[in-house]
Parts: sequence; C-alpha cells; structure tokens
Amino acid sequence: MSQKYHHLNEFILGPNKGILAIMHVLSHDGYRVMCDLPLGDPCDNPESCRWTKFLKSRAITEHLCHAYPEKGPALLPSDKKALASVLTWKEVEAGQFNVQASKLAFELFYKAFLFGGTADEAVVAEHEERLAKVLDVYEVRLSKNKYLGGDEYSLADLNHLPCLHFLVGTPVKKIFDSRPHVSKWCTDALARPAWAKVVAMM
Amino acid sequence: MSQKYHHLNEFILGPNKGILAIMHVLSHDGYRVMCDLPLGDPCDNPESCRWTKFLKSRAITEHLCHAYPEKGPALLPSDKKALASVLTWKEVEAGQFNVQASKLAFELFYKAFLFGGTADEAVVAEHEERLAKVLDVYEVRLSKNKYLGGDEYSLADLNHLPCLHFLVGTPVKKIFDSRPHVSKWCTDALARPAWAKVVAMM
Repeated sequence: MSQKYHHLNEFILGPNKGILAIMHVLSHDGYRVMCDLPLGDPCDNPESCRWTKFLKSRAITEHLCHAYPEKGPALLPSDKKALASVLTWKEVEAGQFNVQASKLAFELFYKAFLFGGTADEAVVAEHEERLAKVLDVYEVRLSKNKYLGGDEYSLADLNHLPCLHFLVGTPVKKIFDSRPHVSKWCTDALARPAWAKVVAMM
Repeated sequence: MSQKYHHLNEFILGPNKGILAIMHVLSHDGYRVMCDLPLGDPCDNPESCRWTKFLKSRAITEHLCHAYPEKGPALLPSDKKALASVLTWKEVEAGQFNVQASKLAFELFYKAFLFGGTADEAVVAEHEERLAKVLDVYEVRLSKNKYLGGDEYSLADLNHLPCLHFLVGTPVKKIFDSRPHVSKWCTDALARPAWAKVVAMM
C-alpha cells in the first residue's frame, strides 16, 4: 500500500479498521480504493461532517464487496437467501452490538489513548450488561452456525473485528470468554490473516 | 396481497413500513416474500428477539432490491460508485437520522397510540435539536443532488419514509419545512405512489 494510504490510516479509528481488513481480504491497494470512493460527499457541511465520515465505514466495506468480487473470497454471498441472512446480521452488528461495544471501547481504550482520561465505571457497567444480552443472542446463533450469517465467514463477521480487537484487551473480555460459541467465533475471527495484517499496521 | 400478509401487517410498526413500500415499488406479492425470507433466524433466544425482529427491516429492504431487481425501478444502482453513495446515505439514515427521528416518533406518536401516554417535552426538545443538525447536512446535500444517493430516488431515500410520515404530522414538521431542499425532498418522497399504497393500508 502507498505511503499516502498509510498517512490516511493514522486518522482512521475504530470501525474504519474494518476497511483495512477488507482491503487485505481482497488483496487490494488501499490508496486507489480510497480515491475511487466518493469520499467527502456527505460532508458538505463542515460543521456536521465528523459523524458522516465515521459512519461511512460500513458503506465502504459493503461497496468494496460489490465492486471487487473477483479479488478475494465472497464476503457477501451470491445466493439471495444467504445474502439476506448476512445483511440481517450486518444490521445487528451496526444497530445492537456496535452501539454497546463502541461505548465500551471508548471508555476503556480511546478515552485514555486520545484524551488521557479514565473510564467511567458506571457507564462501563451499564454497557457491559447490555452487551452481554446481545452476546446471549449471538451464543445461541453461533451454537447452530459457525458464523453469524451462516456457515461461511462474511462481512457480518468482519464488521465486528475493530471493536472485538479492543475489547478482548480489556476486562470486558470475560463476557466473551464465558460464552463458549462466542469465544470460539471471536478467536477465529481475530486470528484471520487479513486482520493480523491490520493489527500489524496499528 | 394475501389476507395473511394483511394480518402480519397489523403488527408491523415504524421502519418495517419500508418493507411494504418496497414491495409496492417492486409490485410484489407480500406473503410470498415474507415466507421466502429466513424470518426468525436471529430470534433463537426468545428473551432477546424483539430487537432483532425490529432491526431486520433494513436488511429485508436491501435483500428485496438484490433478489428482485427485475420487478421494478432500481433502488440500488448497478453502477458501483453510485451504489457506494447510496450505501453511504443508507448508513446515515440508520445511524443518524433514525436514531433521533425514531425517538421523536415514539414520543409524539407511538407513546400515545400504544400506551396512552404523553410526550416527554424535554426528550422531544433534545432530539428535535439533534435531528435539526442532521437535517442541516441533508439540506446541503439536497441542494446539490435531487435525492440523497444522487440524482435518482433510491433505497437510501425510501428507508426514511416511515419516520418522515409520522413526523410531518407533528410539530416537528417545522424543522423540515424550514429547510427548502429538505422540504421539497420530503414532499416528493411522501407523494410517491408506493408509499401512498402503504398509507392506505394503515
């Protein structure tokens, strides 16, 4: 990957690491992909653009799967019913898992890393309890399917990686470890070669 | 549409109305589509299934676009860059617009409709202010493109319809009306024939 892409990467936090992971899955040159995308489109209003830049990561990962299907394994299945399942669990990641996990990652990692602050224990306890309830659903699902979308690793699993990576380095790891199917899925996902390459760039 | 589908519809609230809209766009038979989908997949744990049922609506609308592209106008463009833009604004709807709009719809509509309660004015004021900031971004975007994803109506616009429909019937309508491009977009979207058919079923 180009030097310019590494420079961009310095400013990429959290879920955006998923973009790097998918580039590695697709053996893609990062700089070209970043330039191909309509980056900045939603950021017409500088006062309000920060969240749109952040949120676009899931749109970018899905775009890359559609745009470069020949570059690597199919992270979005071509079978329409299998795709419906992957899209469903992709929504669950964005709307349920990430809502709790990103707050925990902020309290337990980014707050100290970015601002030198300390975690608010009450906020951590609240969101740990909520995330545990989400993981109860994951545990049942993963007892019947190896991955969230079905029997194959997909974009629904990949989008979890950034928050998973940070949380397993915190005391919250225990709520993953205590659910055997979640724990196995988590270990499998974090050990995948494309993610290892992202970690090596951090 | 079949009687059974109408029966299901009695229990469909909020964003799930978008599923009905897309079925009308695609001139689709509702019952067969509902049965085709892996409904219930994420609901293995009955204690926790309510939110997964609710959240799946966006996965279902996207699935329908992929599964039945020949049935109606292309709500997901085939051009990859155009698709990236639509996916981006679809994420913005789910992660920003809907977070505020659904809270306002609950306070101003569902709370009275479902529980006979009254709106919490402080909650309404807080989320109205936040939604107004989101609409500031929309206003700039829609001054340059007729629709959120680009020059064509897309799934990114359609997913807004359920909350738009309820909010323009409340005092919050003023934050849409005061932004001319947002107001024009809103009027256009709510007047589309497929949505009119959904409203007729309510």
